[in-house]
Amino acid sequence: MNVKGKEYRTVWMEGGSVFMIEQNLLPFEFAIHEARFYKETCHAIRTMIIRGAGAIGAAAGYAMAQACLEAPHNERQVYLDEARRTIESTRPTARNLFYAVERVYAAALVSTGEAISEARRIADEDAAASEKIGEYGNALISDGAGISTHCNAGWLAFVDYGTALSPIYRAHEQGKSLFVYVDETRPRNQGSRLTAWELNNASVPFAIIPDNAGAFYMSKGKIQMVITGADRIASNGDTANKIGTLEKAIVAREYNIPFYVAAPLSTFDPDCHTGTEIPIEERSEDEVLFQTGRDESGVDRRILVSAPGSQALNPAFDVTPFSYISGIITEKGIIKPSVETIKKVINP
Amino acid sequence: MNVKGKEYRTVWMEGGSVFMIEQNLLPFEFAIHEARFYKETCHAIRTMIIRGAGAIGAAAGYAMAQACLEAPHNERQVYLDEARRTIESTRPTARNLFYAVERVYAAALVSTGEAISEARRIADEDAAASEKIGEYGNALISDGAGISTHCNAGWLAFVDYGTALSPIYRAHEQGKSLFVYVDETRPRNQGSRLTAWELNNASVPFAIIPDNAGAFYMSKGKIQMVITGADRIASNGDTANKIGTLEKAIVAREYNIPFYVAAPLSTFDPDCHTGTEIPIEERSEDEVLFQTGRDESGVDRRILVSAPGSQALNPAFDVTPFSYISGIITEKGIIKPSVETIKKVINP
Repeated sequence: MNVKGKEYRTVWMEGGSVFMIEQNLLPFEFAIHEARFYKETCHAIRTMIIRGAGAIGAAAGYAMAQACLEAPHNERQVYLDEARRTIESTRPTARNLFYAVERVYAAALVSTGEAISEARRIADEDAAASEKIGEYGNALISDGAGISTHCNAGWLAFVDYGTALSPIYRAHEQGKSLFVYVDETRPRNQGSRLTAWELNNASVPFAIIPDNAGAFYMSKGKIQMVITGADRIASNGDTANKIGTLEKAIVAREYNIPFYVAAPLSTFDPDCHTGTEIPIEERSEDEVLFQTGRDESGVDRRILVSAPGSQALNPAFDVTPFSYISGIITEKGIIKPSVETIKKVINP
Repeated sequence: MNVKGKEYRTVWMEGGSVFMIEQNLLPFEFAIHEARFYKETCHAIRTMIIRGAGAIGAAAGYAMAQACLEAPHNERQVYLDEARRTIESTRPTARNLFYAVERVYAAALVSTGEAISEARRIADEDAAASEKIGEYGNALISDGAGISTHCNAGWLAFVDYGTALSPIYRAHEQGKSLFVYVDETRPRNQGSRLTAWELNNASVPFAIIPDNAGAFYMSKGKIQMVITGADRIASNGDTANKIGTLEKAIVAREYNIPFYVAAPLSTFDPDCHTGTEIPIEERSEDEVLFQTGRDESGVDRRILVSAPGSQALNPAFDVTPFSYISGIITEKGIIKPSVETIKKVINP
């Protein structure tokens, strides 16, 4: 995507380093973070310098390739096995991470060069899939539509284009008039920080709304469709995504508003039969109790926004049962979620 | 309610001044604000130094009484009429405000002394109604219950006891074990700031959750009932309350969890036939784009928490249709919302 006149991907590899857009600095600063060793890339995933299902996957693949470059000859296998475990322990929910690590680990059995090529292929495939998702999803967007989206499933969450936002970018490029209702997506505000930054950058009309206001705008007829991303999709179509997605899906169905999930096939987990098997990451309560942002003098601050001494709960994802999902927009087309349709696109 | 060993109401009148707990300083400081003239009381309502349906009502009644004390003899009626308009323009949604102003204005036609007595009666009635709501609502709470609440409908939102929290306090006093899931209630965080402060102060077990996590905990069977307050109830039972209440009501019904509204009869608006007639306040987008809180050095800060240059929408309330409401807990008992049942309790 184009930022200030230059084309960027969210994450890429040069020499032994993985470079990525520093997402913790966005929306206030646009900077590139360099991770020189696989453990630095793991740190970047864990601290959410890079986040979003596809971007995590690509970064994890690159991290596995970095481990190949770093591995001492006499202990290569031990080093790679440990690296694999370390990378896989960074974030538990996103399917793409495990998918990418598995592929690069297998390629590493052939050669280090093959591992690096495989990591590159994963990133390229992610970008190509996102572009295709934009084409298929665009067909669902009517001129003048109000579209709700939750969290950030834009190009920052993938390698390029994004998933939920990819159809929106495509529709906007084609001159369709549309308006995006961006859920701020507490507690980490990926909507108001990242999706808003992306849409601003691409001049797509939007407004941030509190997560609480979704039903209000749906009940008023302002929203014609909901599109979100996915972190993992079970083989029956149950979908894990950012906490709050389930609420939006339930409310959308109440008002007969179609609810779409946009995700590449790498998000599907054939070993996971239903959503109940998807592990849900519990993150620190501090993400709820405190907020970070920038004060008027341009200084980044962390402030307490709740009663001192309170406890908070912070599940990072929830699972939306397949029955609430109107369709899953993939790079192979839009499918109704079911065991049969999913099997067909994964093993054609 | 007892704070640090002393009994407080949320708002009271002494001489010509209205005193109130400074809710914008909570949860970090407990301080009393003095409004010497009716216009200062209006300012306090507008800037949410005092907020919450019942507390606003009592403050508005006292403001009308202040206007009587201030009115010049030769222009008394003109002064009172202007004061009434000014008070009524402070906040548009809460029914209690108009109810209180109307009563004190009528009493002012008799005498200033009568106006002051009427304002006091309104506050006393509010406290008594809240206490009764606690008794009736307590009967709905089973030992070991997980209870979800949205925004703050505790004693800070009324004169004493509160509405949604009153049954919780009563159940807790009786030794029932319970756990409260407190929605943080963006954008102003009345849940994480005020409800959490109240529950902390009363030693009721609770955790703050992001508004997004409601469906997650409901789907997991952690929540046995939802209780919220109300800002205005139409004569068919449609209920305006803090933005996000509608979402919780829809999600609760999806999981067969009873959804209760707790409100005194002063919240019912017999002139309002359905929820579509209730005006919804649109507040400044800055409440969404910025957050206020306290930094580690104890300094209050306002920080930008969204992409610079973004637009936001900030409806302060939504309307939950009566069909989602299992019951309304009033000082006259628990009623199923309908035109007939409501008429019966309002005009017995």
